[in-house]
This record gives sequence, structure tokens and C-alpha cells, in this order.
Amino acid sequence: MTKKSVTKLTGVIPPVCTPMTSDGQVDADSLIRLVDHLIEGGVDGLFVLGSSSEVAYLTDAQRRVVLDTVAGHVGGRVPVLAGVIDMTTPRVLEHVRVAVEAGVSGLVATAPFYTRTHPTEIRTHFRTISAESGLPVYAYDLPVAVHTKLTAELLLGLAAEGVLAGVKDSSGDDGGLRQVILGREAPFSVLTGSEVTVDSALWMGADGVVPGLGNVDPHGYVRLYQAARQGDWEAARLEQERLVRLFEIVTVGGGRMGGSSSGLGAFKAALHLRGVIDHPATALPQVPLNDEETARIGKHLATAGLL
Amino acid sequence: MTKKSVTKLTGVIPPVCTPMTSDGQVDADSLIRLVDHLIEGGVDGLFVLGSSSEVAYLTDAQRRVVLDTVAGHVGGRVPVLAGVIDMTTPRVLEHVRVAVEAGVSGLVATAPFYTRTHPTEIRTHFRTISAESGLPVYAYDLPVAVHTKLTAELLLGLAAEGVLAGVKDSSGDDGGLRQVILGREAPFSVLTGSEVTVDSALWMGADGVVPGLGNVDPHGYVRLYQAARQGDWEAARLEQERLVRLFEIVTVGGGRMGGSSSGLGAFKAALHLRGVIDHPATALPQVPLNDEETARIGKHLATAGLL
Amino acid sequence: MTKKSVTKLTGVIPPVCTPMTSDGQVDADSLIRLVDHLIEGGVDGLFVLGSSSEVAYLTDAQRRVVLDTVAGHVGGRVPVLAGVIDMTTPRVLEHVRVAVEAGVSGLVATAPFYTRTHPTEIRTHFRTISAESGLPVYAYDLPVAVHTKLTAELLLGLAAEGVLAGVKDSSGDDGGLRQVILGREAPFSVLTGSEVTVDSALWMGADGVVPGLGNVDPHGYVRLYQAARQGDWEAARLEQERLVRLFEIVTVGGGRMGGSSSGLGAFKAALHLRGVIDHPATALPQVPLNDEETARIGKHLATAGLL
Amino acid sequence: MTKKSVTKLTGVIPPVCTPMTSDGQVDADSLIRLVDHLIEGGVDGLFVLGSSSEVAYLTDAQRRVVLDTVAGHVGGRVPVLAGVIDMTTPRVLEHVRVAVEAGVSGLVATAPFYTRTHPTEIRTHFRTISAESGLPVYAYDLPVAVHTKLTAELLLGLAAEGVLAGVKDSSGDDGGLRQVILGREAPFSVLTGSEVTVDSALWMGADGVVPGLGNVDPHGYVRLYQAARQGDWEAARLEQERLVRLFEIVTVGGGRMGGSSSGLGAFKAALHLRGVIDHPATALPQVPLNDEETARIGKHLATAGLL
Repeated sequence: MTKKSVTKLTGVIPPVCTPMTSDGQVDADSLIRLVDHLIEGGVDGLFVLGSSSEVAYLTDAQRRVVLDTVAGHVGGRVPVLAGVIDMTTPRVLEHVRVAVEAGVSGLVATAPFYTRTHPTEIRTHFRTISAESGLPVYAYDLPVAVHTKLTAELLLGLAAEGVLAGVKDSSGDDGGLRQVILGREAPFSVLTGSEVTVDSALWMGADGVVPGLGNVDPHGYVRLYQAARQGDWEAARLEQERLVRLFEIVTVGGGRMGGSSSGLGAFKAALHLRGVIDHPATALPQVPLNDEETARIGKHLATAGLL
Repeated sequence: MTKKSVTKLTGVIPPVCTPMTSDGQVDADSLIRLVDHLIEGGVDGLFVLGSSSEVAYLTDAQRRVVLDTVAGHVGGRVPVLAGVIDMTTPRVLEHVRVAVEAGVSGLVATAPFYTRTHPTEIRTHFRTISAESGLPVYAYDLPVAVHTKLTAELLLGLAAEGVLAGVKDSSGDDGGLRQVILGREAPFSVLTGSEVTVDSALWMGADGVVPGLGNVDPHGYVRLYQAARQGDWEAARLEQERLVRLFEIVTVGGGRMGGSSSGLGAFKAALHLRGVIDHPATALPQVPLNDEETARIGKHLATAGLL
Repeated sequence: MTKKSVTKLTGVIPPVCTPMTSDGQVDADSLIRLVDHLIEGGVDGLFVLGSSSEVAYLTDAQRRVVLDTVAGHVGGRVPVLAGVIDMTTPRVLEHVRVAVEAGVSGLVATAPFYTRTHPTEIRTHFRTISAESGLPVYAYDLPVAVHTKLTAELLLGLAAEGVLAGVKDSSGDDGGLRQVILGREAPFSVLTGSEVTVDSALWMGADGVVPGLGNVDPHGYVRLYQAARQGDWEAARLEQERLVRLFEIVTVGGGRMGGSSSGLGAFKAALHLRGVIDHPATALPQVPLNDEETARIGKHLATAGLL
Repeated sequence: MTKKSVTKLTGVIPPVCTPMTSDGQVDADSLIRLVDHLIEGGVDGLFVLGSSSEVAYLTDAQRRVVLDTVAGHVGGRVPVLAGVIDMTTPRVLEHVRVAVEAGVSGLVATAPFYTRTHPTEIRTHFRTISAESGLPVYAYDLPVAVHTKLTAELLLGLAAEGVLAGVKDSSGDDGGLRQVILGREAPFSVLTGSEVTVDSALWMGADGVVPGLGNVDPHGYVRLYQAARQGDWEAARLEQERLVRLFEIVTVGGGRMGGSSSGLGAFKAALHLRGVIDHPATALPQVPLNDEETARIGKHLATAGLL
């Protein structure tokens, strides 16, 4: 398994939003501009087809367009990770094959969902993905979607086997995150998925961050990360606190829509207002933000110095 | 929408297991034998690509094989419903197109899952599926998998709009089931997904049942249903009580595997022991039953007079 | 343990509401009138200090007033069960001592709550209550409050030991209810706590019902029960369906308050409108119903022929 | 409300375990020794009758013994906070009266539990406790027990009203913690209840920590806190990492008991092994640790330099 582990993934690796046209197709031109915006922002890698990419809303054909567009445009300048998000192993392996063909650097997979799952089955799942792909596999711990928490014990066991190259932790459980950090044998990449506790995760020893809000403000997360790496924790905290305030945009839709509609809609509206993408459209059945909600996002951007 | 509603779906409509070869492919020969076993058992319809069909574990190509095999072999003798189970509207619509091409009689769809969803979004989801398919759409209420409960209010509203033709209720909430039964305007088909409260659901006014255990013992569920329809509730209850005892096979795997492995494995082991299918294999990453567990299923079958 | 088991509890045993004065004290005069209303309605027993009695809101002194008032006034005409609802064994035992002193016929206890609890601990809990009280103990299965589901296996094991005399099942899981009914050795009293599936629970073999709505319409539940006992299931169903419609009063408070405020408030408002109790007040911190909500309850009562 | 707010609570405030005799009574002598152990360890305050004090298992008489014993022995040397843990407002107010009589410095209350509760009701609950007590009230956010998460919006609103003096956050949601820290107007005391992320919580701006493990190693948490206050974050982190490893004692009971039995049993076994308390007994219905489990705790203590 050593060929998988030459370098440990670190830094800012945003989950790339998937811009869409108003009729629900992938807007490849906007996607390329978004990738450029992120790379120019200094990010260390890109994660396509994650939750913030609306992966759950994309057809297989659309997922392939995203993969080919991003992998082609990036051309190896930064690592590209691909989410292979589906209910169980056989369906995930279909996505694995497409991602491998597209030439990505690593895969991000959740535990099985929709089915009732046992730790033994979760282990089989990750082992199969690793063996079939020949690529580094990152576990995606996202209980709000998957309804299973990946325990430190399970993650560390699969890390020791060489099955997992790292974890993207979006569980919000920083105690569990710390257990993984203290228990791992190098190299195992611990990436936090939380937008609002990046400085403290890095402080605990995390290697990087996968922030949805990094689409909107990659420079901010890059500054945060670099300050932490240089040991200037005070600067890291101030940057983080600015980003915590900006993150309030995800609540703009309030109770009239689901959290995905509000959060992903906010990221896209902000990217549209900043001139990065052509349309703020989100996929069905999400509820679009209205003008008043979009205007409030604009105010947040202005306060954050992003307009 | 009237063309959708010419007949209301009633009776015993088992969710058809998907037999597999030992290397994980759809075993079409066994599937055809299973369909014959069910039709000879007297069932009123077939539901393919439901949870008991391991739909969550089948690739799109395998789903298509199932649809074509069953729809082709049935040739209109009984209605065939197809599950179109995926995370969100755009992905579900892909399955809808395939199911429509295969010539099925109706579609069964859950609310969106994996994403955080709002009632407004669930309504949009079902409306879009109905409009795009031109087929009767049955809501699949399965909170254990989808992590959302479809309320009576939501179901009755979509029924009144003509969007939903019925519901398959696997929520276990018989109070909610009754609210739908008492609140509906005809024709709206209420089908219980519970194997163990069929007599009482029919007693409350439900139209039929979609029992996973019906794969193993279709004759039992057909006797139960017909006794109820003829007003012989005592016979219905006795049949149901026999089936409650048989249903204990789903717990055979105990705590060493997940509920899907144990339950779906038990159905397939029983079908194998009864000579209906060639292999008891289940899809990855499920844990196979061992010999001791399979022997216990054999004893249950013997007790139930099925060997 | 045989002295505990001379008779099996059956029939309609409403959880008695606790009328209050406008300053939050137990209104003993109204409570006596409510008890008379229920006994005249033909109920087979009374359950005081249950969830519908606002037991969670009553101080220990108030609980004692309720026990003494009801036990004294009933004077043995019907069995009186007492809820002994608290977090863990030592606290529950304090309530047990008071209930035993008051001369009640049996006790109703939940699993421990607030703490994280294991089946071994739940067994110790019920065994201790049984041993200390010398009274029949009924398990109260109420996952919405206790956040633990009592499994059929656990209940049947404690029944076989003589620890439990029965169960009040408010879990809404009629499949589980049936497992207990089919698995029990006589005498073990199975009582459903659901207002809306009483006919079907009796049909499955349940012995009785503990309906909060029975405060408002005891005659209805008594008619339902007696029809079922006489084998006139059609009459039972019609009565049940009338009560299902009446039960809609519990939703009157909608989203502006919690379910307890709305449901318990509705029962008390209905009792006030029917002239049984002097005040519709509920305990802090519940939100009182307003005039418009109360008027809607009045309309439901009129429709049900109760005004 | 200004008299409530003269000083903001800060530092290490352990939730004091409640030593018991082998027959389940409060062991006041051991409790006094434990208090001395903590004060000599340098703690800034004491929190009695919290979850780690087995408050859910103590009768009202036992709670009063604890309050009188600790308040009397401390004699004002450090602030003593008292948990007033019960299901709803009227029951909590009974505990408030006893705590006020005992002369405590502040109160710690959860949202209502057992009942189904609404934010409006939670606000009424805290407002009533504050008004009736005249003492600083700290909200106790413990979703694992209370099954409600206190949102930043709710906490900050009650803080602005002067109802709440602070929060003890045991939710594990450090993103939410940060929202409160950034959103508060001074003085509002933010205390983390997590044993394993104290350095990062202090880094974010929290004022202190309420660590159950602080019973076992108060010196460790005091060193951690003081290092952080002096800006020596590296020392704080190293101390925290040592304590993360020691915290593994809470898992010693594994799957054969509940989390309370294992965690609280481990704290008491450690205190017994260290010679602070006379008996490691926990209250019913908790499962006692066996000799092998106790021996493993001893090894952890030795590794941590505490034996």
C-alpha cells in the first residue's frame, strides 16, 4: 500500500460547488472559473463531488462532466479528490471506476447509508473500495447525512491496515477528532469539514480543512491555514472569527426551506454576486433563495470585504 | 390525471427479492423462478427494486436487468411496480426513465435522503416525478432508511392534487396509517409494509400489503388477505399469527451483522432452502449467514410447514 | 409473587388529568368531579400520575395530593394505578413508598431516563421496584419521553420472572406489541396507550387501553371496549373512527407550542368546556391555549356530540 | 439584575462526584475529603449535583445532604454551583429553594426533559428559575440526556435579558460554542463540559471548564487552565493530551453496561484507588465495575503519574 501514501494531504481543500445553468445542467464555463478562483486563492487541493458540490443531486452523467472538466482544467497543478457518494459498495464502485478514469488523486467515500449498517460491513465497504481503486481513500464522516458516526476505533483500525489514507470529519465532534489525531500512526490525513473551528482543529493537530465556505472566500481560509502553519495562532484566530461571521449566510433561508437549500444556495448566491459563476441556480428539489435573501447575503459579503 | 387512477391497487404485492449469483450478478433464471413462485402463490402484483430487493445495493445496470427480466416475464399478468430509489429528484428521474421504458405499471419513490430536506422540497420532489413519468406514483414511507416521516397531512395533500396514487407505509406508525385511511378521498391506495400487522391494517381499511416475508410464503399472505376480504377475520388473524412466528427468521444474524444482512439474508436463505432460487448470496458489503444460522431458518420453515 | 397476580388488569383505564387552579395548585374538587365523570363513564380502572396527568410537572407534594384525593375518593370501587415517574431507581423508590402508603393497586414505571441506560440496568431497575413495593408493576413503554424502547425480549423475560404484571405500550410500535402478546405466558396485561388504534390492539389480543382522550370521552372508549369484548368488531371500529376524529384536538396548538402544551391543554380545555373541571390551566412552562384554539376544540366536541 | 453579575465565573469548576457507602447512602466524610482534594488541587469553584455527581440517582434528601455538606465545608472559599436537575419548572423550583437555603453561589439548570418541549417553553422555564431564585443561573446544555440542543440564538437572547449568567456546554458542538462566544455581550460565562477539548475551547474564548475527569486529576486541569491563561498554549496542549489519554478510563466497562455506569464508575474507582474516597460504589441501577476493570483503571492512573 506504500504507493498510496507517498504524500500526506494537507492544507485547504475546498469542496467545489457545482455551478448550474438555469435549466439544471452543469455550467462547465462557470465551473472552470470557480476552479481558477480557488487555485488563484491559493488552495492546496480540490474536492469535487462532495456534499457542497450537490453530489446528491447530480446524475451520473453530470458527475462525469464535473470530473472531466475539473481534472482536465487543473491538469495536475493541485491534487483533485473525488467524492464517490452512493448507498452501498456496488454502487460506489461504479463511481470509483469513473473517477479513476478521470485521473483523480484520491477518493472520498462515506459509510453505506439508506441501509441499516454494522461496523463489520463498513469495514468491508472501505476495504473493497481501497482494493478496487488503487487510490488513496478518505473516509467521509458526515452523520447528518449518513446517520452513522465513524468511531475513532474504526478509523484507526482501517488506517493501520492501509485501507484509509485519511478522514474528512464533518461530524462536529471535536473530541472524536482529537482521539483520531492522538491515536494515528503517520501518515494519516485528518481534515476537518467544519468551517468554524479550523484554527482549533489545526491546533489539535489536524492536517487541513475542507470548507464549503472556502468556495466563497478561499483567500480567507488560505490565510488562516498559513498563519497556523507559521505558528501565528492569533492571526489564525482573527481570520477564523471573521469567517465565522461570514458563515452566517448559510442560515439565510431560515425555516422556509431545508438546510441544503439555504446553505448551498447561499454559497452559490455569493459566488454569483462576486462574479465567479453565471447563475446561482441549485438543483431540484431545492428551494431557490429570493431577492431579499440574496440581498442579505450581499450585505454579509460587503461586511467581509468581499464585494 | 384521471388516466392514472383507473384502478386502485389492492391485495398482496410482495417486494421481490433479487437473486444473485455467487459473484454478485443478478441471477435472472432464479429471478424468473421467484416471479413464478409468487404469481402461482396468488399475489396481486409485484414490487421490484424495493428495499427487500436490495435496491440500495444494485448498480443501475443491474436494476435495468431486474426491470427487463420481470416486466418481460410477467407480460402484464399482474401489475409491476418499480422502486425508483435514489437521493434526490434528478437522480430519481434517471431511474424513472428506465422504468417507464420497461413498461411498469407504477412507481414507488421515497422522499429525498442524504440531504437535509423540508416538506416544501418533498412536495416538489413527488410533483416532479409524477409530472415527468405519467405513471401512478406511490410514496414509500420508510423512516428507518430515509430518516424522514411522511405526515398524513403531506400525503393527503399530494393525493388530493393527483400527484400520489397511494402510499407504501413501512413506518410502523399505525396511528398515522389510520389518519391517512380516514382522511383520504378515493381512490388512494394504502398499502402496509409491515409483515406482522397486516390483519389489523386491513381491518382499519388498508387496501393491501407489501410484505418482504411474502417472498418466502406468498400463499400465507394471500390466504390472510382473502380471509380478510371475505370477512373471516378470525382466519385472517390465525394466518397472521403463524406469519408473525415465521418472521422471527429475520433476527437470525443477531448482533454480528446489520439488520439488512440478517433480514434479507434470511429471506434469500429461505428461498434457497425451499428450492426457489439457486444461491442465497446477498450483495456487498452485507455479511453472509453461516451454516448454523441457515439451519435455524430451516427449522422455522419446517415449523411453518414450508419445507 | 402469586399474590400480585390474582387478577389481570383489563378494560379502559384512563390516565387521569390533574386539574389545576389558575395559580398552579392541584384543584382537588375538580379532580374528584373528574374521577366521578370517569367512573360514571364506566371505566375499569384509573391511572393517576401518568404523562397525561402532567406527572412531569407536579411537585412531590402535589403528587401526594393527587394520590390521596383519588385513592380516598375511589375507595376501592375500581383499581387505581399510580405512576412512579422519575429518572432512576432511588428516586422512583421514593414515589413507590408514597404510592404504597396511599393504598394503590399497582405501579407504572418507565425505564431510567436522563442517564444513558443499558438493558442490564433496566432489568435491575424493574426488579428493585417490584421487590420493594410488593405491588404489581406495569412497565411504561414511552420512547418519545424516555428515549429507550422496551423490547419484547426484555418485557417477556421480566414477565416470566414475575417482576412485571403488564405493560402500558405508548411506543406506537404495533408490531412490537404483537410480539409481546404472542410471546407472553398468562397472566400478563398488555395495555395500549394509543388513542387511535384501540380496536386493532384489542383485535391482536391486547387486554385494555389507557387513553388520554378517555378523560374527555370515557363513554366512547367504554363502548369501543365493550363492543370488542362482545365480538361486535364493526361497532368497535366505528366508535374508534369517531374517536380518531375527536383526537384531532391535540394538534390545536400547532407549531407555536410543544406537543405537551397542545395535547394536555386540549384535554383540559375540553373537560372545562364540558363542565367537568373548573379551570383549563396547565402547569409551567406549558403555553396556555388561546380563545381561538379553545373555540376550535369546542367545535370538535360539538361534532362528536359531547357538548 | 446587576447584583447577579458582579463577577464572571472562570477557571476549573469540577462537577463533584458524590461518594457513597456500600448501602447507597451519601458518604459525607469521603465527600469532604474529595472537596479538600479539589480545593487543594487549585480549582476555581465546585459544581455539585451535576450529571457526574449522579444527581439523577440521588433522592431529594440525599441532594440536600450533598448541598449542606459541601456548602458548609467550603465556607465561601470558592464559589459553589448547584445543579437543579428535574423534568420541568415546578419540580426544578423545589430544588431551587433548597439550594438557595444552602447558600450556593449559582444554579445550573437544563431545559425541561421527558416532556416534548418548545423554545418558548424553554425560555419561560429559565426566566422563572432566574426570577424565583435571585441567583445567577447557568444553562446546562446536555443533549445526550435532555434530548434538546440549546441554540446559540436561545442562549444569547436569554443572556441579553439578564436571565442567564452563563452556559455549561456539554453538547460536544464546538461550532455552536464558538457562536455563543462570538455573539455574547459581556459578562456571560462560557464553560465547556468536554474533558478533551479544553485547550481549544479556551483558545476560542471560553472562560472555563467543568470536567468530570477533574475529580480524578484536578491538578492537571488547573495546570492546563493556567498555562492557557499565561499564553503558554503549547504547555496547555501537552497537558490536555495527557488528560485525553487518561480519559480512556471512562470506556472501561465496554458494552456490558451503560455509559453512566462505566464513566461514573471509573471516576469513583480512580478516586478510591487514589485514596480520596472510601468506597467506589455507584447508585442503583448502575452496574459495578469488576476487579479486572478496576485494575485497568489502576494502570491508567499509574501511566498518568497519579498513583
